[in-house]
Amino acid sequence: MNGPTATLLISCPDQQGLVAKFANFIYANGGNIIHADQHTDFEAGLFLARIEWQLEGFNLSRDMIAPAFAAIAKPLQAVWDIHFSDTIPRLALWVTKQDHCLLDLLWRWQAKELPAEIALIISNHQKLEAIAQQFGLDFHHLSINKENKIQQEARQLELLRQERIDLIVLAKYMQILTPEFIHHFPNVINIHHSFLPAFAGANPYHRAHERGVKIIGATAHFVTADLDEGPIIEQDVVRVSHRDTIADLTRKGKDLERVVLARAVRLHLQHRVLVYGNRTVVFA
Amino acid sequence: MNGPTATLLISCPDQQGLVAKFANFIYANGGNIIHADQHTDFEAGLFLARIEWQLEGFNLSRDMIAPAFAAIAKPLQAVWDIHFSDTIPRLALWVTKQDHCLLDLLWRWQAKELPAEIALIISNHQKLEAIAQQFGLDFHHLSINKENKIQQEARQLELLRQERIDLIVLAKYMQILTPEFIHHFPNVINIHHSFLPAFAGANPYHRAHERGVKIIGATAHFVTADLDEGPIIEQDVVRVSHRDTIADLTRKGKDLERVVLARAVRLHLQHRVLVYGNRTVVFA
Amino acid sequence: MNGPTATLLISCPDQQGLVAKFANFIYANGGNIIHADQHTDFEAGLFLARIEWQLEGFNLSRDMIAPAFAAIAKPLQAVWDIHFSDTIPRLALWVTKQDHCLLDLLWRWQAKELPAEIALIISNHQKLEAIAQQFGLDFHHLSINKENKIQQEARQLELLRQERIDLIVLAKYMQILTPEFIHHFPNVINIHHSFLPAFAGANPYHRAHERGVKIIGATAHFVTADLDEGPIIEQDVVRVSHRDTIADLTRKGKDLERVVLARAVRLHLQHRVLVYGNRTVVFA
Amino acid sequence: MNGPTATLLISCPDQQGLVAKFANFIYANGGNIIHADQHTDFEAGLFLARIEWQLEGFNLSRDMIAPAFAAIAKPLQAVWDIHFSDTIPRLALWVTKQDHCLLDLLWRWQAKELPAEIALIISNHQKLEAIAQQFGLDFHHLSINKENKIQQEARQLELLRQERIDLIVLAKYMQILTPEFIHHFPNVINIHHSFLPAFAGANPYHRAHERGVKIIGATAHFVTADLDEGPIIEQDVVRVSHRDTIADLTRKGKDLERVVLARAVRLHLQHRVLVYGNRTVVFA
Repeated sequence: MNGPTATLLISCPDQQGLVAKFANFIYANGGNIIHADQHTDFEAGLFLARIEWQLEGFNLSRDMIAPAFAAIAKPLQAVWDIHFSDTIPRLALWVTKQDHCLLDLLWRWQAKELPAEIALIISNHQKLEAIAQQFGLDFHHLSINKENKIQQEARQLELLRQERIDLIVLAKYMQILTPEFIHHFPNVINIHHSFLPAFAGANPYHRAHERGVKIIGATAHFVTADLDEGPIIEQDVVRVSHRDTIADLTRKGKDLERVVLARAVRLHLQHRVLVYGNRTVVFA
Repeated sequence: MNGPTATLLISCPDQQGLVAKFANFIYANGGNIIHADQHTDFEAGLFLARIEWQLEGFNLSRDMIAPAFAAIAKPLQAVWDIHFSDTIPRLALWVTKQDHCLLDLLWRWQAKELPAEIALIISNHQKLEAIAQQFGLDFHHLSINKENKIQQEARQLELLRQERIDLIVLAKYMQILTPEFIHHFPNVINIHHSFLPAFAGANPYHRAHERGVKIIGATAHFVTADLDEGPIIEQDVVRVSHRDTIADLTRKGKDLERVVLARAVRLHLQHRVLVYGNRTVVFA
Repeated sequence: MNGPTATLLISCPDQQGLVAKFANFIYANGGNIIHADQHTDFEAGLFLARIEWQLEGFNLSRDMIAPAFAAIAKPLQAVWDIHFSDTIPRLALWVTKQDHCLLDLLWRWQAKELPAEIALIISNHQKLEAIAQQFGLDFHHLSINKENKIQQEARQLELLRQERIDLIVLAKYMQILTPEFIHHFPNVINIHHSFLPAFAGANPYHRAHERGVKIIGATAHFVTADLDEGPIIEQDVVRVSHRDTIADLTRKGKDLERVVLARAVRLHLQHRVLVYGNRTVVFA
Repeated sequence: MNGPTATLLISCPDQQGLVAKFANFIYANGGNIIHADQHTDFEAGLFLARIEWQLEGFNLSRDMIAPAFAAIAKPLQAVWDIHFSDTIPRLALWVTKQDHCLLDLLWRWQAKELPAEIALIISNHQKLEAIAQQFGLDFHHLSINKENKIQQEARQLELLRQERIDLIVLAKYMQILTPEFIHHFPNVINIHHSFLPAFAGANPYHRAHERGVKIIGATAHFVTADLDEGPIIEQDVVRVSHRDTIADLTRKGKDLERVVLARAVRLHLQHRVLVYGNRTVVFA
């Protein structure tokens, strides 16, 4: 398979003929579907789908695709997006002091695992600036405290606008974003170092150790105004035992955090994640 | 979701418009698609799909669906099947002396996890006859040795015909079927107690212990003329250590075997497994 | 390895020479250690160990072992128990309506995986009585409601005394035991159908579905007066997706529940589980 | 827990009193055991143990410990080693062109996860030289072909001697070491990108894809004269599906390779791995 593709992510009230309508739109315009997956949530009466087709030979020019599809989607009351595989999303990585998720994402980016442009790094500490330099990336140090949080978030939003950022990845950013910030920039993925909803909030490894669990986890989710309550994209776990100290849980957890976050970011960048309500459909 | 459904499993050389063609066929006849999944194997140039739709309100009578679809499928050189969810497949469970997979399948059958009729049990030993009685099932004891194998296979085939069996499940049947038998009755799922292709053949737990592996596995696959070489449907693994004796591997492995076999049988009974070449697509 | 063994489970404040003291006691009396494992919790300043030795050739008679060891243990302020592998613990299985954990434990018992005698089944419903009959086990139906709970618990305790029960296994017993009951009979293992501490309490599968988690779990733990808060013995998980309905989570979860409960019961019956505080050391 | 420790790794024919003998040796000299784990292989009649104790307050000077212990070990026909936690092993990382395992080990080394000194990098290609520079490490490019292999191995051995290397880690070194080399330097850990013994040898991901397995794995093992046949230290797996191309298997596999190799190296550096026959005991 070669050449750019278009991907439709769509959800709408379920009714007969939806697959036919969407497939016909693509076929009628000379497209070849290379991935089609759908899900029907019968409780919610909702149809959700991902359809990807090759743009080579497609008769509609790119700027005509959305308007043409809108004519089909509107009567269906559909919520939808069309993405082109060669439109590379721009990422901002936000970090504090821990480097494992940052380094992992940067390595995957260099290894071409992440179809994105990493445009800048934002941190409330200076500790990881050298990594930014090493990878030739802009590093913005914006320290946060109670007094300056609103102002700094304004500066952050300004930076995101200037750099035309599509997605923030909180790669161990140890600050809570305000609901206002999320309202202005809702496209944020976070990694939480527990198997949510267990141990939401602070110090999950300490609490896991205290509780004596036999397995720990990590969770990548979209950020919403409710802390650690946003739609879950990916989770994974690792077995622990009584021998593991909090330091061991932290060490084992770091391996989980980086792979879970990387998987979630990659799935999202491939337009495989569709949010509805507080849940996700992952067309993996 | 209620009511019976039809499921199309299809593979054909890839070309434009396939999804549209199949979806249109269903929509034009008043069907509502509840599951559609496709896969394109670009190396093989092959399109493979599973489409399931509700039969209620479908305008074609059941006996007309296949002939009508054949008109579409033929020019595509497609290999396909249509299954109705209320046509219950008939199963023969084949066993030797171990009861864990047999009991597990019978329990799942009673718990309505397996959309099938278990029609009979065939064994080359008498040991498990009491279980058949307990579940009210016919038990056929057909002992096998070098001399009588061909004759006994003929009797087995006759039984399968009489009882209109759709699928044989080798639930720890410790005999090799002849290529001739497989040729006559190719729909056979086996559970092998290793992570294939590791430890194909006899005594996998002994050999796993000898090799000092840190993980053991089980594999459910379709049976072909080549021992343990058929298309794999499902695999799973469990961690072991130096403390585990061969008896421990056997015990841990039994838990794997029963869950892996049950998953594979269930997936197949839901028409989610499509074989091509020596591989499977599992539309899970 | 053959013949009966003795197993010492011990915890005491850490100090030098503990391993030597215990090993010397066994060696001086002619015992051969076949398993020795220890753990030191440095935060708690606690030494915990499991030592198992062969009784054949051991110079102390069984009834002299504990008194002789007490002389060593007392000055160490140790909490300890000595178990003989051929003293078979007596189990009571408590159930309500679901049969999967009950059947699984009974199969494993028949398959000699559980070194125990299953003495009776207690249920607050009659539904599973036929299973008791099939396995030749006493079945006691003790319905529970708000009014009669205290009385019925008294009858339950009386039954446990009469039958000299060592361990209660709550194999999907959908009633909460009173703190008084636990006080009188503290040796109770429960299976909870979630990855604790996530989804403690009622309807974990519904809540897991609602939350949109990508993995579900099961937890076997000792029962304490705090619901779902007792020391965890074993946990395991399985991956789920947006396709899984609550019925699917329940089905997948049942496979977890039975294997996790069985592992925990087996570990406990092998005297591999040592509780301290609200945690366990599992000498696996 | 603070301060340096000594760790005894020992195996010998099983007999009574071994634990007592070893524990007494430590106790009599004022040592406090912080980890003691043993395994008895009854088939082989072999006792294997790991005992770690605090050196602070130990009455024997370091250079006297081994001679003193030898007096105990000799009559037992024991094979044993004593390691001090503050004697830092020196590592050589060998690579070819792939950077994922190299970078992963270097990150963990910087994060203090690996108690070792990385002394140099050896490669048969120049591609990864920049990484060596970035981490301030010596990089030795020794290209290998059929003609020069023996000579280059001589130079490699010379480098290992000069740099007093204790352990070679083959972090994706795509060359086979000669039996002579292994004979001279037997302490080598390799990562193989399959679940051994499945897909030993070349191109495991291609062969896994061809075979249609549903799970792939990675194996870290000691190198012996028989390719991919050495004692296994650690393995792990990840689920794959029909959607995964060979490129996807390679990508998923890289995540496995780096974590499996890192775990094995760490276990070995902590003196938790004891080889006997072609197997390992891992006192984890």
